[in-house]
Amino acid sequence: MKCRRCRQEAEVALPSHTTGFCRECFFLYFRRQIERAIKKHGMFGPQDKILVALSGGKDSLALMYELADQGYDVTGLHVYLGIGRSSEQARHLVESFCAKHGFKLMIADMPAEGLAIPEVKECISRPICSVCGKIKRHYFNRIALEHGFTALATGHNLDDEVARLFANTLRWDAAYLSDQGPTLSEDSGFARKVKPLYRLTEFETAAYSFLRGIDYGVDPCPYSSGASFTSHKALWETLEEKSPGSKIHFYDGFLKSGRKAFQSLERESGVELSPCGECGSPTSGEICGVCLVRRRVQARRQNQSETEIEP
Amino acid sequence: MKCRRCRQEAEVALPSHTTGFCRECFFLYFRRQIERAIKKHGMFGPQDKILVALSGGKDSLALMYELADQGYDVTGLHVYLGIGRSSEQARHLVESFCAKHGFKLMIADMPAEGLAIPEVKECISRPICSVCGKIKRHYFNRIALEHGFTALATGHNLDDEVARLFANTLRWDAAYLSDQGPTLSEDSGFARKVKPLYRLTEFETAAYSFLRGIDYGVDPCPYSSGASFTSHKALWETLEEKSPGSKIHFYDGFLKSGRKAFQSLERESGVELSPCGECGSPTSGEICGVCLVRRRVQARRQNQSETEIEP
Repeated sequence: MKCRRCRQEAEVALPSHTTGFCRECFFLYFRRQIERAIKKHGMFGPQDKILVALSGGKDSLALMYELADQGYDVTGLHVYLGIGRSSEQARHLVESFCAKHGFKLMIADMPAEGLAIPEVKECISRPICSVCGKIKRHYFNRIALEHGFTALATGHNLDDEVARLFANTLRWDAAYLSDQGPTLSEDSGFARKVKPLYRLTEFETAAYSFLRGIDYGVDPCPYSSGASFTSHKALWETLEEKSPGSKIHFYDGFLKSGRKAFQSLERESGVELSPCGECGSPTSGEICGVCLVRRRVQARRQNQSETEIEP
Repeated sequence: MKCRRCRQEAEVALPSHTTGFCRECFFLYFRRQIERAIKKHGMFGPQDKILVALSGGKDSLALMYELADQGYDVTGLHVYLGIGRSSEQARHLVESFCAKHGFKLMIADMPAEGLAIPEVKECISRPICSVCGKIKRHYFNRIALEHGFTALATGHNLDDEVARLFANTLRWDAAYLSDQGPTLSEDSGFARKVKPLYRLTEFETAAYSFLRGIDYGVDPCPYSSGASFTSHKALWETLEEKSPGSKIHFYDGFLKSGRKAFQSLERESGVELSPCGECGSPTSGEICGVCLVRRRVQARRQNQSETEIEP
């Protein structure tokens, strides 16, 4: 196969565009998709201070690399979860990556915050993945606001977005459907959230990271066996194979026609939010969900130490 | 497996309800699902005159049998398409079925109406399946109105409805999404349309027809190779297998939360309809789509006979 742009030998095949690129033209294609996402959805400009959530995976590291390369003012944020060797490795990958390229990095240390995920897991009855996600989003938002960042960027790719949109559609969850998109505007207590990789597939971000020589983590979280969206992603691979372009059409179509239908429904049923009594984050209750989880962890520790004293 | 209701040996397994029934209890289950559909969506009552569209397949014959058995005033309508042996066989199945059970039957003869499908196929560039569907719906509606029927019932089952809803959702087609459901109210120029089998799967209507000894057609239309919804149906079988109940949850969830979102959007962009200058059916143009197709068939015949005279 020849590169669509320069007619040299192609190195990356892109079935959904029924085309392929050589290495340099693929980098250009990758950049153009991000530029298009940023511009189309008013994500940010050169004046913005951008906090990039870095898990250590291919998506977030590729995003950080590319935004820095495009000249944006970016700072990485890694949330250290304290899940044994898995978290150690993720933290190490992020630190090495940022050190190598001279990127600014902040670490939010969950064990130090009283929220080590293995301890949290012992205190809740819900699946840990949903609570862990909640905790990460909580710290992304808090740190963005507390340190004056004007946008919070995450590495969600097209496959992530389509799988999540699909799951919300299967349930016709109007609240989530009205709120899904590549940009969520800043609001009282909420940082602006953006997903500059939403037009690129998992395969494309993996190819990009590989070709850029980025050392990224591939081991799944030890707690994530059978995680939510895996089977939906497989289903969408089948649809995409049968009809190339299905994913981006589904997602773009939603942004164009579906979302506003749900937004008009949701406006009528707004929920009032006020600051959490402990951390100040917006919540519909008196104490936010993350502070409630922290209290549970503390209570459990208290219980355990009393039991240990008892004989 | 034991029958869930009477604990005798089960004859029909229903994975989506993680249960099974003996023959008699399956018939009762089948009836209850239809009663529930009729009641929940105000489809019709004992005073209604119901026209049932009969293709000769398992769904429509099962529907006719069951509605007659429940005491409703039903008349069958078969649209004879004129597609060679396939249409002959369908017509014969419907006629034998109605004769055997003493059901009233009307036949709409497309060749006599100047709309034999093989001729239509030669006059259009669009796929024949969509035009043929349009023609059938046109005659269902016209005959229902002209003969004073108060409801038009079709045999669409849950798999049909889910596959169609899914296809419309993939495209986020607000016009179709606002209009899909088990009951479409009567409106100026439109009969009330109802789908009493919408809670029952294809497997269930096939099992019902088989156990009732109904002789139904199984050969696909010779023109329908690779027809639209087949791959979506396969995909939904996978989803249902992984998570029993997925289909009905998706469809019911749409009726509960999704549809009204699209209806509120669509109300703002209503299209004006007026009677077709030839047949009187509602249309957004001067002549309706079916009369336009008929004109083309006539023009083609004219052309052919002139060519034959010429040499």
